[in-house]
Amino acid sequence: MHPDFSFHLIGTDGAARAGEIATAHGIVRTPAFMPVGTQATIKGVRAADVRAGGADIVLGNTYHLMLRPGAERIAALGGLHRFMNWPFPILTDSGGFQVMSLSQLRKLDESGVTFRSHVDGAMVALSPERAVEVQNLLGADIVMQLDECLKLPATREEIERAMRLSLRWAERCKRAFEGAGPGRALFGIVQGGDDTALRLESARALVDIGFPGYAIGGLAVGEPQDVMLRVIDETAPALPADRPRYLMGVGTPEDLLEAVARGVDMFDCVLPTRNGRHGLAFTRFGAINLRNARHAADPRPLDETSPCDAAHSYSRAYLHHLVRVNEMLGAMLLSEINLAYYQELMAGMRGAIGAGRFAAFRVAIREGWERGDIAPVAV
Amino acid sequence: MHPDFSFHLIGTDGAARAGEIATAHGIVRTPAFMPVGTQATIKGVRAADVRAGGADIVLGNTYHLMLRPGAERIAALGGLHRFMNWPFPILTDSGGFQVMSLSQLRKLDESGVTFRSHVDGAMVALSPERAVEVQNLLGADIVMQLDECLKLPATREEIERAMRLSLRWAERCKRAFEGAGPGRALFGIVQGGDDTALRLESARALVDIGFPGYAIGGLAVGEPQDVMLRVIDETAPALPADRPRYLMGVGTPEDLLEAVARGVDMFDCVLPTRNGRHGLAFTRFGAINLRNARHAADPRPLDETSPCDAAHSYSRAYLHHLVRVNEMLGAMLLSEINLAYYQELMAGMRGAIGAGRFAAFRVAIREGWERGDIAPVAV
Repeated sequence: MHPDFSFHLIGTDGAARAGEIATAHGIVRTPAFMPVGTQATIKGVRAADVRAGGADIVLGNTYHLMLRPGAERIAALGGLHRFMNWPFPILTDSGGFQVMSLSQLRKLDESGVTFRSHVDGAMVALSPERAVEVQNLLGADIVMQLDECLKLPATREEIERAMRLSLRWAERCKRAFEGAGPGRALFGIVQGGDDTALRLESARALVDIGFPGYAIGGLAVGEPQDVMLRVIDETAPALPADRPRYLMGVGTPEDLLEAVARGVDMFDCVLPTRNGRHGLAFTRFGAINLRNARHAADPRPLDETSPCDAAHSYSRAYLHHLVRVNEMLGAMLLSEINLAYYQELMAGMRGAIGAGRFAAFRVAIREGWERGDIAPVAV
Repeated sequence: MHPDFSFHLIGTDGAARAGEIATAHGIVRTPAFMPVGTQATIKGVRAADVRAGGADIVLGNTYHLMLRPGAERIAALGGLHRFMNWPFPILTDSGGFQVMSLSQLRKLDESGVTFRSHVDGAMVALSPERAVEVQNLLGADIVMQLDECLKLPATREEIERAMRLSLRWAERCKRAFEGAGPGRALFGIVQGGDDTALRLESARALVDIGFPGYAIGGLAVGEPQDVMLRVIDETAPALPADRPRYLMGVGTPEDLLEAVARGVDMFDCVLPTRNGRHGLAFTRFGAINLRNARHAADPRPLDETSPCDAAHSYSRAYLHHLVRVNEMLGAMLLSEINLAYYQELMAGMRGAIGAGRFAAFRVAIREGWERGDIAPVAV
């Protein structure tokens, strides 16, 4: 095991970076994609299959887990790793984003946020200190500070106020995290919306406080992709080169490729599993909607060169059938296929960066997507 | 592979029998439980995991598959085995039972049954000849005759009429099945409701026609268990000892134990997967409802001695959580646990029959169920 939390860069290629994060529960190869396990399960995929698909780390949601089954309950059962049968690294978010997006009747002030539980209607308080305590109870390897996450567009005043509040909460989280066990780390979160000056102010202030890793938050909340990429372009260089950079809640395969090209190391997103449940597959040839009738008689697998069993062992006709008749197995197989594709993409990027050919890799991957799905054979 | 269909008895113990059925796709050890793959998938469980759980054979539903994706479609894709990624034996029912239980606006006469598809509203005809043709297109190793299956209670006149019609359809199915490939077999179905004389007449007439296996149909359709067991007691001895006997649509673990004690060799039932989707586990200690709050803090696995990974690798608290928050993984794990328990029970019965200690096995199994679930430890 790896008692000390650390990050080291293995190689860079332009702004893109390949590295390794060491945690109490093992190594995370970066750039890394973290499947989302909101309620202590990656929806529709067993933990062993998430691992077999190539994941080094998964994400858990503080908001959901503190409501059900409760952080103290999970701690009494030995922590989140044991609870969900995932003995590898786990990052937990702080709950802030879900409080904003999921809960009604919330009250936000300097002390933190109070919201009505969607489960039983009880009022629940989440302060920076409680957010850290909950994540400590869960036993996360990487803990996120509590922040205020706005939907874009928002006024500059709103963005500035939320960013400054998030900075004060960052300091409180850092104090609350002092004395945490070895191999664990607290990350700060850069806010500032789409405003360059505010983003830079946030990044510099966080670096002054000092964290072993930094997230870029408040993106993928409704803004166009070019705005997101511009903010990354402006923010990433303001973060220390020797610390991992995590772009929260992002994104599509194209988002990942473009963000890695701009120096991001970590990602999480529900898209692979959510789209899998809706019949959509991510592949080397772009997204494929298995619900489409053109697959009904197609005997070919989704991608015969994929290392993922589900991608090469079942015909498109079978996947189409499962999706059309709404069988659970369709959601299971497509979620697994999508997670495996995301991990294959990350592994490809890591290899390309290590070999100094990231630019060519990026072009080739884009060509595959743009070429689109292979034409069906006549049957 | 086994080009000729055959059945041989390995041992008997009282009326209970252990044997082996050889088919074109491999061996079925009896007594056998067949997981139900209604729409070309055992709900929530991958085919490889159904196999790993101990299944030798699965059941497919003619009614559902002829409507979606269609028997001709599956045949063009290489047959049901390839379609659902299950290269082992498959039995298909004739569609008769589902026509009676699922479809509206049906018309039944000597020629067969016509019904309105629940998928697109089209009128669909199912004759004895078409039922065999569909099952041949699917490529089933064991094909069932078309029969008329009544709900009990019914009048003696109704039962007699349906039984006689089913006999005439049995002859037509046998003619339609002539020339089928090697390693495949057509089974006749004994009808006659809860009437002893009609059951015996049906059994004798079917034996006169001559089939490589016989099913007892029209049970588990609303009658009490003692009526079902009496009918098996009366019917099984009228069937040839050297042919497998299949009790259709049955049942609970107790039903299986009691029916094997009465000379039945094969079973199918949706209970393990349906109950798994509803949070109910079958175990050595009876049925356990994981939704119950007493499991919420219980760190013990469901059954630490089970060979099934899902039964010994996850805490009851975790399974409870998954069921309560309605996560797919709960249905997946409990379906797998239940299928594995059913197969463990069948393997136990086969071993006990072979060793001449079935009576003691039956007592011990019943004691486990009656003892009930182990008390939770204090946490």
